[in-house]
Amino acid sequence: MTEKRPTVVIVGAGFAGMHAAKALREAPVKVVMLDRNNYHLFQPLLYQVATAALAPSEIAYPVRAIFRKQKNFEFRLAEALNVDLDGKAVYTSNGPISYDYLILAVGGETSYFGLDSVARNGFDLKDLEDAMILRNHILRMFEGASQEKVPHVLRALRTFVVVGGGPTGVECAGALSELIRLALSKDFPGMNFKDDRVILLEAKERLLAGFPEDLAQSAATTLQKKQVEVRFGAEVVEYDGRQVRLRSGEVIPTCTLIWAAGVRSESLMDKLGLEQKSQGRVVVEQTLQIPGYPEAFVAGDCVYLEEDGKPLPMMAPVAIQQGKIAARNIERLIADKSVEAFDYRDPGSLATIGRNAAVARVRKFKFRGFLAWLVWLAVHLFWLIGFRNRLVVLINWAWDYFLYERAVRLITPDGSLPKKDQPETVLPEEIERVTEDRPINLALLEL
Amino acid sequence: MTEKRPTVVIVGAGFAGMHAAKALREAPVKVVMLDRNNYHLFQPLLYQVATAALAPSEIAYPVRAIFRKQKNFEFRLAEALNVDLDGKAVYTSNGPISYDYLILAVGGETSYFGLDSVARNGFDLKDLEDAMILRNHILRMFEGASQEKVPHVLRALRTFVVVGGGPTGVECAGALSELIRLALSKDFPGMNFKDDRVILLEAKERLLAGFPEDLAQSAATTLQKKQVEVRFGAEVVEYDGRQVRLRSGEVIPTCTLIWAAGVRSESLMDKLGLEQKSQGRVVVEQTLQIPGYPEAFVAGDCVYLEEDGKPLPMMAPVAIQQGKIAARNIERLIADKSVEAFDYRDPGSLATIGRNAAVARVRKFKFRGFLAWLVWLAVHLFWLIGFRNRLVVLINWAWDYFLYERAVRLITPDGSLPKKDQPETVLPEEIERVTEDRPINLALLEL
Repeated sequence: MTEKRPTVVIVGAGFAGMHAAKALREAPVKVVMLDRNNYHLFQPLLYQVATAALAPSEIAYPVRAIFRKQKNFEFRLAEALNVDLDGKAVYTSNGPISYDYLILAVGGETSYFGLDSVARNGFDLKDLEDAMILRNHILRMFEGASQEKVPHVLRALRTFVVVGGGPTGVECAGALSELIRLALSKDFPGMNFKDDRVILLEAKERLLAGFPEDLAQSAATTLQKKQVEVRFGAEVVEYDGRQVRLRSGEVIPTCTLIWAAGVRSESLMDKLGLEQKSQGRVVVEQTLQIPGYPEAFVAGDCVYLEEDGKPLPMMAPVAIQQGKIAARNIERLIADKSVEAFDYRDPGSLATIGRNAAVARVRKFKFRGFLAWLVWLAVHLFWLIGFRNRLVVLINWAWDYFLYERAVRLITPDGSLPKKDQPETVLPEEIERVTEDRPINLALLEL
Repeated sequence: MTEKRPTVVIVGAGFAGMHAAKALREAPVKVVMLDRNNYHLFQPLLYQVATAALAPSEIAYPVRAIFRKQKNFEFRLAEALNVDLDGKAVYTSNGPISYDYLILAVGGETSYFGLDSVARNGFDLKDLEDAMILRNHILRMFEGASQEKVPHVLRALRTFVVVGGGPTGVECAGALSELIRLALSKDFPGMNFKDDRVILLEAKERLLAGFPEDLAQSAATTLQKKQVEVRFGAEVVEYDGRQVRLRSGEVIPTCTLIWAAGVRSESLMDKLGLEQKSQGRVVVEQTLQIPGYPEAFVAGDCVYLEEDGKPLPMMAPVAIQQGKIAARNIERLIADKSVEAFDYRDPGSLATIGRNAAVARVRKFKFRGFLAWLVWLAVHLFWLIGFRNRLVVLINWAWDYFLYERAVRLITPDGSLPKKDQPETVLPEEIERVTEDRPINLALLEL
């Protein structure tokens, strides 16, 4: 390259960032993408990793592999720590990077609404590590239960509480109930699986707020058929890792609380001194530009934009379309053309509840049951990156479907526990402290 | 079950333990297997996880899935901490387990021969966690190198030292060189890959001690063709994480030392007060019984037995055959028959050096090159557990073979670093400490 091309820095390799970078394929720019992970994560299937249906490598694809053929693309493994909008530089864990144009597409993170005890003791489902930690934990609960005799401990080990009736909570509760009743019940032949509980707690009076009312009702019925207890008006106020307390005063003993009740903009966005609205999302022009900084764009979950008076959902289709528009507007700026306003074209919504069951709205059409489930399968396979991933995911899904199996029931290293820091020598007397009245056998759970 | 069946406790879900449990399928016993992991690991392919060719779930298979149909089988997720041979009990992280018969099949661990600095700063390759940590580290070296300017730092980042010319060292060095030159060179198009070094250090004067001399020479030549520097008479004395020092005084700067030079019996065996010979392996009767304890058997890597005056190798075929004999001898004891002596039937040895290249001895026949590689492929696919694993591994291998790719170039959570404990707020001034004279950019490497 002889001419000096302007540098477009894209922060984040999620749906928005990736589609922005792709859209700049032919543009006369140098694209520099940075992310703290070296892969693009297919977040909509994260709950399948958490419930042992897919392996982490099946929903994560190396960024460098995706962009291998894109000549104007560069990747940097680094965490964005701050942005100097006036000085046009992104500060990263590996030094500052200057830009001519910027696309901030850092996504969302879990929001606990100030419930510190839940943040500390609960599980969430936003990245690959969360999913692996949760999978390992769920499997450890059953290994623990198989060696446990004390009734109240057993009850806590085998009760799973999912909080939040949005798509993530619904999909997670459905998949978890099927993992337990279809696959684990065969792994633990001596165990009675009637006592296992999967409870979905929703603070409001309905599931799937973004879906039509009748589909939401149909989802609740299907979950109940799959032996998920769906509870409405159930607001969590505290969780100590052993029992969850609701606003009503009710206490549910459980070693597993999965928090799928809140997301907000990635906290990096709080540092930029910009106007933020609900969920910490940043207010931008309709063109996705940051007010006062025409060269700086925001795309995806961290953007606050309204449509028909309601904020756009934090979903992949919004992120993809915004990433593309941000990229196109940068091209227009370079070509001295006027920028375009973002206009969301809603492709619909999908949520799966397990085998043969889903709810789907595709434009104005509504589907449920088996047909919706086929739509869900097709859409997810289509959007998954890489033909090999699609092939392997399809094999795993087909296998599980026909054999009522789960592929990845492995308790693998996940960063939640230090490697092999077991006590070196334990005397038999010490070990036999395992008595009948201890609350929960932590020694085993944290093996 | 009305009659009281004797309990056979099998410690370890490796090759020996697994084949012992399978052999007891029809026996009038209750089998209790315990392991600190909930999976059987196909150790011979561990180096392929470390070099991003296979995903962890492709070489690990849940123990409960393997034995799902075996009615007399029970699994306990627990670590064995000690054995009371007189009291017939195994002490575990989850309490004591009594046995009538015992099979100790706890396998081996890495031996550093007292080189503490290597143990602290080097990488080894004995379990799934080791392999994931090593894979992530190797990929981080290239991500780091792509953002590094200082020549001596770059050199250390892009020099990989493998210590030990046995099968693990040879396979690992070959696979690593191919990962770098065939796959990563495409991921980092701007980088010059001529400077990358993979160095295989062997203290003695030949590779693959258990193989015929001509095959060992052929392996060395093939490694050199694949751009591995093979060094003989090179003994490591110290490694500080940045440079390795040899007995000769020579110093090689490297951020990656992979130790494949020593294995020994799992250290649990040191606690039992039994006679141990080289590598901490326990002396047993030819029947695999512990002298003085006819109901207690040992099988696999932790057994010391000689054949033709030489100790048997610590290899899967030995472990499999010993596991079966230990099981059969327990059946004979129960049936009041006399126990049998173990007699190793040597099926041969195999080592692969990468694409189209391997060395193999099958009984008296020797193979090398493409033919040996086909033998290697067939043998490993055959022994892999589970049809789905075989299918997925075959797809990955075929894909990599035809496209010169590597499936799993992901830097995933592995337990080597704490989850998201990055500094919360870093001021721009602080970040710009990245100067030209710092030794190694740890901030990036440990992102």
